[in-house]
Amino acid sequence: MDRTMTTGTPQDQEILSSVEALSRTAPFDRAAALSRMAPDRARAVFEQLDPELQKELLAHLRDRQVERLLEDLDPDDRVRLLETLPKAVSDALLARLSPRERRLTHRLLAFPKESAGRIMVPEYLPLRPAQSVEEALSLIRREGPGVATVDVLPVLDEEERFIGLAMLSDLVRAKEQERVADIMIYSPPTVAPETDQEEVARLLQAADLLALPVVSPTGNLLGLITVDDAMDVLQTEHEEDIARIGATEPLDRPYLSIPVLRLTRARLVWLTLLAAAGALTVNVLNRFESVLEQAVTLSLFIPLLIGVGGNSGAQSATTVIRAMATGEVRGVHSAAIMLRETYVGFLLGTAIALMAYFPVAVIFGTPLAITVSLTLIAICTGATLVGSGMPLLAARVGIDPAVVSAPVVTTLVDAVGLLVYFLIAQAVPGILNG
Amino acid sequence: MDRTMTTGTPQDQEILSSVEALSRTAPFDRAAALSRMAPDRARAVFEQLDPELQKELLAHLRDRQVERLLEDLDPDDRVRLLETLPKAVSDALLARLSPRERRLTHRLLAFPKESAGRIMVPEYLPLRPAQSVEEALSLIRREGPGVATVDVLPVLDEEERFIGLAMLSDLVRAKEQERVADIMIYSPPTVAPETDQEEVARLLQAADLLALPVVSPTGNLLGLITVDDAMDVLQTEHEEDIARIGATEPLDRPYLSIPVLRLTRARLVWLTLLAAAGALTVNVLNRFESVLEQAVTLSLFIPLLIGVGGNSGAQSATTVIRAMATGEVRGVHSAAIMLRETYVGFLLGTAIALMAYFPVAVIFGTPLAITVSLTLIAICTGATLVGSGMPLLAARVGIDPAVVSAPVVTTLVDAVGLLVYFLIAQAVPGILNG
Repeated sequence: MDRTMTTGTPQDQEILSSVEALSRTAPFDRAAALSRMAPDRARAVFEQLDPELQKELLAHLRDRQVERLLEDLDPDDRVRLLETLPKAVSDALLARLSPRERRLTHRLLAFPKESAGRIMVPEYLPLRPAQSVEEALSLIRREGPGVATVDVLPVLDEEERFIGLAMLSDLVRAKEQERVADIMIYSPPTVAPETDQEEVARLLQAADLLALPVVSPTGNLLGLITVDDAMDVLQTEHEEDIARIGATEPLDRPYLSIPVLRLTRARLVWLTLLAAAGALTVNVLNRFESVLEQAVTLSLFIPLLIGVGGNSGAQSATTVIRAMATGEVRGVHSAAIMLRETYVGFLLGTAIALMAYFPVAVIFGTPLAITVSLTLIAICTGATLVGSGMPLLAARVGIDPAVVSAPVVTTLVDAVGLLVYFLIAQAVPGILNG
Repeated sequence: MDRTMTTGTPQDQEILSSVEALSRTAPFDRAAALSRMAPDRARAVFEQLDPELQKELLAHLRDRQVERLLEDLDPDDRVRLLETLPKAVSDALLARLSPRERRLTHRLLAFPKESAGRIMVPEYLPLRPAQSVEEALSLIRREGPGVATVDVLPVLDEEERFIGLAMLSDLVRAKEQERVADIMIYSPPTVAPETDQEEVARLLQAADLLALPVVSPTGNLLGLITVDDAMDVLQTEHEEDIARIGATEPLDRPYLSIPVLRLTRARLVWLTLLAAAGALTVNVLNRFESVLEQAVTLSLFIPLLIGVGGNSGAQSATTVIRAMATGEVRGVHSAAIMLRETYVGFLLGTAIALMAYFPVAVIFGTPLAITVSLTLIAICTGATLVGSGMPLLAARVGIDPAVVSAPVVTTLVDAVGLLVYFLIAQAVPGILNG
């Protein structure tokens, strides 16, 4: 995103409030409102909208306006918008860009979705290590206005290979006769164009840099990823995590602008899948119907037991997902993590079992108290094993770990937990035919 | 955080890898390793560690080393570390700072935890609107090295009131005879020192700025919040959200460095509370024991029904929490949101009920199929109402909405859902005494 474009004018507040106002109005009125704005203002407002809203707007604007808005977007923002359009439409729009912008756009589109190559700014102003600080600054003054970002400048050698970064703040604070080589950062963290955007954002955050260079395998600079784009990526990825932990899909537009039927459809798939998996529990219980008939009290504890199992599984899954998301935990630690989690689950189960034992014994008798307590220990141990194992397994086969989090783990644990419950009940004397 | 300090040297890669290595070693070895480093290196590494690890290190270092490390931290990082120490220890450490650093630190500590005032950089280099770009740049060259951030510079009027921001990148690209007034951003978004840090981070992200000014009610500039600190805040808040959605508390240290017993303790509180709430379901079922004895098949569907209820409640809760976290949805929309969600729940319940009806009717007979289907509709409708209402209610009374998310909603929905199930079963002819 071009920071100087959106914040470099005194009208920023107005633009931000126009963006907010536009997001809330009906699609057709939106296009009309945008058409009435001055071209510069319209462009600045358009740039700040969600790609989904931009897409809707395009459908309601006249061709010339569309062309102009698209031409003025930064390449990375343009790609994000084109991604939301049907292929035929985005091809038609691409064909109408100026040759220069079309070339830049195609360069980004060549990289996989959600990769560093898609979100980078492909234009930059290269410095040379032998340049003096004074030369570098006057180059920036001369050429800078045409470049999206100059807060961080790449330094290239004579063979155009990337060797480091110069921070604008360091250039300005250096003595004029110093060389770029004296103040630059050598070998900062870099990413390949195929690197996943989430990893890029996390790397940028850890390094506390304003931009991260994207470098080809041959050492050539392809572009820069700026901190504001990294923040947007982090936000999007977090929303995806949270939505999936809640057994739904992330929304691509503001919540209040999504029709009820679309919200329903987005959730129905997940809910149906989970309900179908839940039918497994009906099956397990059906097998033990004669046991239930003999000791109907057993059924009283079914919701409590699967609730505790589900919750301890969810705790384990979210903890592991978080540790994986921060890059701290990798596949190599799988065994150690599952062992740790299972141990935690055993301790938790034992603690809850001890607390449950006496009230249950007093009200329902010792045999049931023994059954419930033993099941709690087994369920918590098993739930943490499954809860920690599923995300690790998912990552290994290339699925988003958040997808197999709480709800999936819970459904799995429910069925197995019930099985264990009835097996224990049959083994404890005094429950059946008691 | 002082960006130039941590990335301005060629040894950045080494520092980052030292940080990672230190995070993984045992506490005592950590202190020894840090003591062996050159003072500059030790400081850079120390700065990058989590406050919890910094705190442990302090306990193992000699007094002189502690003093030096603390003196060299930026005020906002120092405050973050002091927050983790017992009051007596942090007071003792504060007393040993130089007068200047002590004053700066006290200024931040005066503001509430997790507020803008705590995370701002209290030092800045003010520009004046009448200054020429040339004057401004030479001021930055002269005074800049002593200031933590110069990427964005505040502009003050003669009465020292805040009037706008000048981006360093705009200054460098402007003509030398232009005035600061010509290129500055007038009235950018600002925050009060008491503003919640999460709101600050979101505002900074939306505005695509590199720093956000913290301004007093009288219009005086108190400090700047830099984009790297905002990214850290977003990360922390997201981790908190995800942990709480998973019914646990966020970890303050890398996962693998936390002892198993501490992990267990952190989760036990939540698990016990939820299990105690789950005892409500035992109660409800106990009341209907005679119904269960007459129709034991009813118990087969208990896990499935509460599973579907829990999942649709969780979907609703996480969706609303997300919409609230992005600032899109506020308390004023409560009624509209709950109505929407309840409608979505009714549609979801109806869809699942239709899918469930035929298989259940074929295997278990029409009366049970009617009971299960009606309960599914009721449970989904109720679960989305509770799922959307609880986070909104929590926000109104000042609790983190994520705390009352999925697990709490699920537990509530379980008990009420069972009640509804048995009431419907009693009303449908052919289930009891059938």
